[in-house]
Amino acid sequence: MRILLDVMGGDLPPAELIKGGVRAARKKGIEVILAGDPPTIQAALTDLKEPEGRRCHILPSSSIVTMDDAPVRAVREKKDSSLVLGLTAVHDAEADAFVSPGNTGAIVASSIFTLGRSEGIPRPGILLSLPTVEGEDAYVIDVGANSDCTPDQLMHFALMGATYARDVAGIAKPTLGLLNIGTEKTKGNSLIAKTHEQLDACPLPFAGNVEANSVLSERPVDVVVCDGFVGNVFLKSIEGGVYAVARLLKKTIRGKLVATLGALLMSGSIARVRGTLSYRRRGGAVLLGVKGVVVIAHGRSDAVAIESAMDVASRQVKANLSSRFSEGIAGWSSHA
Amino acid sequence: MRILLDVMGGDLPPAELIKGGVRAARKKGIEVILAGDPPTIQAALTDLKEPEGRRCHILPSSSIVTMDDAPVRAVREKKDSSLVLGLTAVHDAEADAFVSPGNTGAIVASSIFTLGRSEGIPRPGILLSLPTVEGEDAYVIDVGANSDCTPDQLMHFALMGATYARDVAGIAKPTLGLLNIGTEKTKGNSLIAKTHEQLDACPLPFAGNVEANSVLSERPVDVVVCDGFVGNVFLKSIEGGVYAVARLLKKTIRGKLVATLGALLMSGSIARVRGTLSYRRRGGAVLLGVKGVVVIAHGRSDAVAIESAMDVASRQVKANLSSRFSEGIAGWSSHA
Repeated sequence: MRILLDVMGGDLPPAELIKGGVRAARKKGIEVILAGDPPTIQAALTDLKEPEGRRCHILPSSSIVTMDDAPVRAVREKKDSSLVLGLTAVHDAEADAFVSPGNTGAIVASSIFTLGRSEGIPRPGILLSLPTVEGEDAYVIDVGANSDCTPDQLMHFALMGATYARDVAGIAKPTLGLLNIGTEKTKGNSLIAKTHEQLDACPLPFAGNVEANSVLSERPVDVVVCDGFVGNVFLKSIEGGVYAVARLLKKTIRGKLVATLGALLMSGSIARVRGTLSYRRRGGAVLLGVKGVVVIAHGRSDAVAIESAMDVASRQVKANLSSRFSEGIAGWSSHA
Repeated sequence: MRILLDVMGGDLPPAELIKGGVRAARKKGIEVILAGDPPTIQAALTDLKEPEGRRCHILPSSSIVTMDDAPVRAVREKKDSSLVLGLTAVHDAEADAFVSPGNTGAIVASSIFTLGRSEGIPRPGILLSLPTVEGEDAYVIDVGANSDCTPDQLMHFALMGATYARDVAGIAKPTLGLLNIGTEKTKGNSLIAKTHEQLDACPLPFAGNVEANSVLSERPVDVVVCDGFVGNVFLKSIEGGVYAVARLLKKTIRGKLVATLGALLMSGSIARVRGTLSYRRRGGAVLLGVKGVVVIAHGRSDAVAIESAMDVASRQVKANLSSRFSEGIAGWSSHA
């Protein structure tokens, strides 16, 4: 298996991302194609004592899609970027998967343009795994690829989410929930009401509405379905809540000897909680609904996060999801 | 000033809510009308050594709108409930404000039906104050009254939020932000894009888009505007994030002596953070855009939370907001 890693578009320097790619190659027995500036990559490989051409290869690129670039324009104008060349390599079957910590909008636009949509899927969606108090991850789709959605698009997110949960996450009989502002069937907006009706009437394993405050603590379903605007607000609000508690606690402790001592004694526990919630171990989000495996790592990904994203990509390559989507909603069965 | 308190619809027993009402009456020099079952209220007043008829009065009611009641139906069928009779008392100028920890949907429906909409406001919205790391509250409107919104409705939420911030919260020059999934003008769904254009072109103090993760920590604006579906997801996601961290920490500590000792030493700080984030001190949400002051306290409100909700109501009565809304968006000025 060959996984392409875009080492140029993240917040951290290429050397850090390359370290993650090399580690994945060594541990997982996969080949890694590093897309980026050749001298930078060669220098990093030398530092890591990793010979070029054995497990690690270079795909030279000469421009970078930045986080601030307008997605569609960047894709059109920066054809020699690691992002566009990397996805082209996947399209040309030179690589089995694409991993990048770069500009999410540009990755989505370029994936659709370069790889094309999966058969039967009108709009690709981004699926993210979330840690929960219960220990097992919950999956959320869409967390940002589509801001305006129709019920049909949500139905396809449901199909893709259930299929991913079954075939990649290994949940034999996954359940689906619709993110809503109440669990009652009558709650929510018109998009949710129409989607609820359609989900009720199809073979997908729909378990009803779920509320945002229960996902992390009660894990009421395996896969949470929502439009990309709401999904993105959901994620960023959780992030904001967690961060605010941490900041407030720090502020309250400051200068207080007893509390500082307490924090010191608790530091192991706090670190474990942070580890559970950390994006570094979560491997990034996956773009489902394009012809190819595309993993969007967090912009601030370090070597650990990249290694984890490579792992997510390799598991998805083995599952061959895209071909399963073509069976459609009507053909869905938990025993596929 | 007379404030009506619905003592029947909350999660806690009427006696607990009555205690909050009596405390507010004693401390704030206001009169409180307690709507509910007379024997229950009389018994509670006797326990509190508060004579009936001096600061505290009784409005007898004989049915209860429960949390599970369908809003519109409950309002139509339970005309002798504390909720409907209480709002009728405000309409008939027998009380200056209505406070209830009851069914939010029923309070909204009954307020619109009984009090009527404020002049120039097509759709009332719920405004909530949120604690932030910076110390000052941020305000969010709408957090659940309207699940499907038009740009015009969001414009009116903006007007009401800015007016509340200026005239009730006392922020001389309040700023408004639109809740979005990125700060760039091009981000978001079509509702946000159209509202952004309209806000840019009007005299309201619009400062651009804000992201959900920055509201609590950076407090980029005084008032955050969103549709009620997204606003509700925003609140519940924050709640879920905060709760998950607390649960995970507890789970991690369990059985570990050093960590338990640390938690003990930190308990003062943890209690302070919990106090900052607590709904008990926040006084509940306010329904803006109806002809009258309506405060929706948290369903789990105890005496402290009710006292705080009464305080929010009394401050709003003094500000006479409804008449200011009629000046409209075009007439908005920070110096009104």
